Amino acid sequence: MIMTKRDLLITEVALRDGSHAVNHQFTLDQVVNVSKALDEANVPYIEVTHGDGLGGSSLQFGLSHTNDLELIEAAAATVKNAKISVLLLPGVGTKEELKQAAKLGAKMVRVATHVTEADVAPQHIALAKELGLETVGFLMMSHMAPVDKLVEQAKLMESYGADVVYAVDSAGALLPHEVKERIRAMKENLSVEIGFHAHNNLSLAMANSLAAIEEGATRIDGSIRCLGAGAGNTQTEVLVAVLDRLGINSGIDLYKIMDVAENIIAPILPKPQEITKDSLTLGYAGVYSSFLLHSQRAAERFNIDSRDILIELGKHKVVGGQEDMILDVAAELAKK
Amino acid sequence: MIMTKRDLLITEVALRDGSHAVNHQFTLDQVVNVSKALDEANVPYIEVTHGDGLGGSSLQFGLSHTNDLELIEAAAATVKNAKISVLLLPGVGTKEELKQAAKLGAKMVRVATHVTEADVAPQHIALAKELGLETVGFLMMSHMAPVDKLVEQAKLMESYGADVVYAVDSAGALLPHEVKERIRAMKENLSVEIGFHAHNNLSLAMANSLAAIEEGATRIDGSIRCLGAGAGNTQTEVLVAVLDRLGINSGIDLYKIMDVAENIIAPILPKPQEITKDSLTLGYAGVYSSFLLHSQRAAERFNIDSRDILIELGKHKVVGGQEDMILDVAAELAKK
Repeated sequence: MIMTKRDLLITEVALRDGSHAVNHQFTLDQVVNVSKALDEANVPYIEVTHGDGLGGSSLQFGLSHTNDLELIEAAAATVKNAKISVLLLPGVGTKEELKQAAKLGAKMVRVATHVTEADVAPQHIALAKELGLETVGFLMMSHMAPVDKLVEQAKLMESYGADVVYAVDSAGALLPHEVKERIRAMKENLSVEIGFHAHNNLSLAMANSLAAIEEGATRIDGSIRCLGAGAGNTQTEVLVAVLDRLGINSGIDLYKIMDVAENIIAPILPKPQEITKDSLTLGYAGVYSSFLLHSQRAAERFNIDSRDILIELGKHKVVGGQEDMILDVAAELAKK
Repeated sequence: MIMTKRDLLITEVALRDGSHAVNHQFTLDQVVNVSKALDEANVPYIEVTHGDGLGGSSLQFGLSHTNDLELIEAAAATVKNAKISVLLLPGVGTKEELKQAAKLGAKMVRVATHVTEADVAPQHIALAKELGLETVGFLMMSHMAPVDKLVEQAKLMESYGADVVYAVDSAGALLPHEVKERIRAMKENLSVEIGFHAHNNLSLAMANSLAAIEEGATRIDGSIRCLGAGAGNTQTEVLVAVLDRLGINSGIDLYKIMDVAENIIAPILPKPQEITKDSLTLGYAGVYSSFLLHSQRAAERFNIDSRDILIELGKHKVVGGQEDMILDVAAELAKK
């Protein structure tokens, strides 16, 4: 295969972010079929992990149908050119699991932390580099930090040895001008490659990905047929078409990736990806999805609108683990 | 109801553009329920017509379940603040039908022509003005004309008396920078209000609508829950949320419009709106959907990929009525 120079590198996240959408029930057959087809369409990176990363399979986050490491091994054995990526959240996944993933054929790891907590990542990044993995610092919920804080944390990731640093819009809350200022500042202050990961809660995943590219991001995440958490991510096959129209070379075969979406992914999707009331609310409030169900319960108890709770939580910039704030916020709102 | 000044006016097109998505089978009950709910959410304009405009119900375009004029009358009788809009394509709809629509309570008409054929519109626009209707010149397939041609045609619409002129991205083919240059040029050269109508084939409906607003468009079309032709339009309830985040006042109640989408529209949709292979292909090729099925048949006959035919047709800038070119293009491609 003749590889022309790619202008940017797309990481396909359907087999990781999409794990949420299928309730972590990916089968070995599905992972092998999808990986093979994506590889044949010349997708450079395919991420395969539980939605919450290595070790994510648990009662808390949802049990996987098939063990992550088994899926990673099968995907790595299947692809000819693509590199298999894994996600690792320090505290959820362990260094031991990362070692095993590398041994089984993973070539890239994305070490993911909350946008203000890069400092939990240095050991995992160091180990990843030791293992010879391409290493990405993945700053989640990037909308929750001001630009200078994001840059500070991105520089930490770089200082630990990350080859690439991503701004991750986990809640699908960012507007295009907010993406631009973030990527521009990262680009100005870092020497490593910059990436961007979008969610489509506000129907802006494509707009935000283009905004990031305009400011110099060279890594973009996509989920084919929008097979990602919530409203899904930037739809990969559409992104490839738009980049082609813009004269930007992703290296991915447009017809093949369209066919994978239609013939292999669409039949797997438990339901088509729409922007529903819930996903819109989360994007608008800028709150992580783990707060949704609890807020709906609290709203019933206090006879208020759950959206008011979520928006208030968004203003308080809550993070996972602070779910106990929901009742306080609900009670406060009910008093008003 | 206290009405604050709106920064822009949204026209909800689900009951017109969405007619295609439900195969023109809207019932009287559905139109009444949806109009009532949209009105209560403070949507300023609600378009109610067959997908191809007044008189569109036909063997050629698809027969309506219920006569257009009956639906328009019922919607007009239902709403308290909203204005009912109708679509009229000169040559499809007649002046007589427009008179009847006005008599039954329509307050706005959008006189729609191909982007290079504004000159078929003057009589219908003149009549609309006589009838006291707010009158919009609606330039379809705007991606097919260079910017100066679009401006020339928009100025014609203005000279005929249109109160507003729209650039309409019927095929969902425009990229944000292309929208910007079009709206900017229209804004510079016209005195009337400028509008923009998007389709989501390239996942850019929201991006393009924001691009149009940035350049001064003050009328934007939305389809609630994306209930429009093909991949749907700019999703209305999401647009309202995004505008709110941007500090732009649409006057529409966000929670109410979200609830209409979830509780009233979602159950009507025959299938959720996704970007499929077909809709992506049409947006990428910039070809109207009437060419899709014929191209797929020709592709089978000549054993080639239907996408190659559609892309070639896009290069030839074909318009509805030129479907006979499909076989020529297919034969030519098969030879190569």
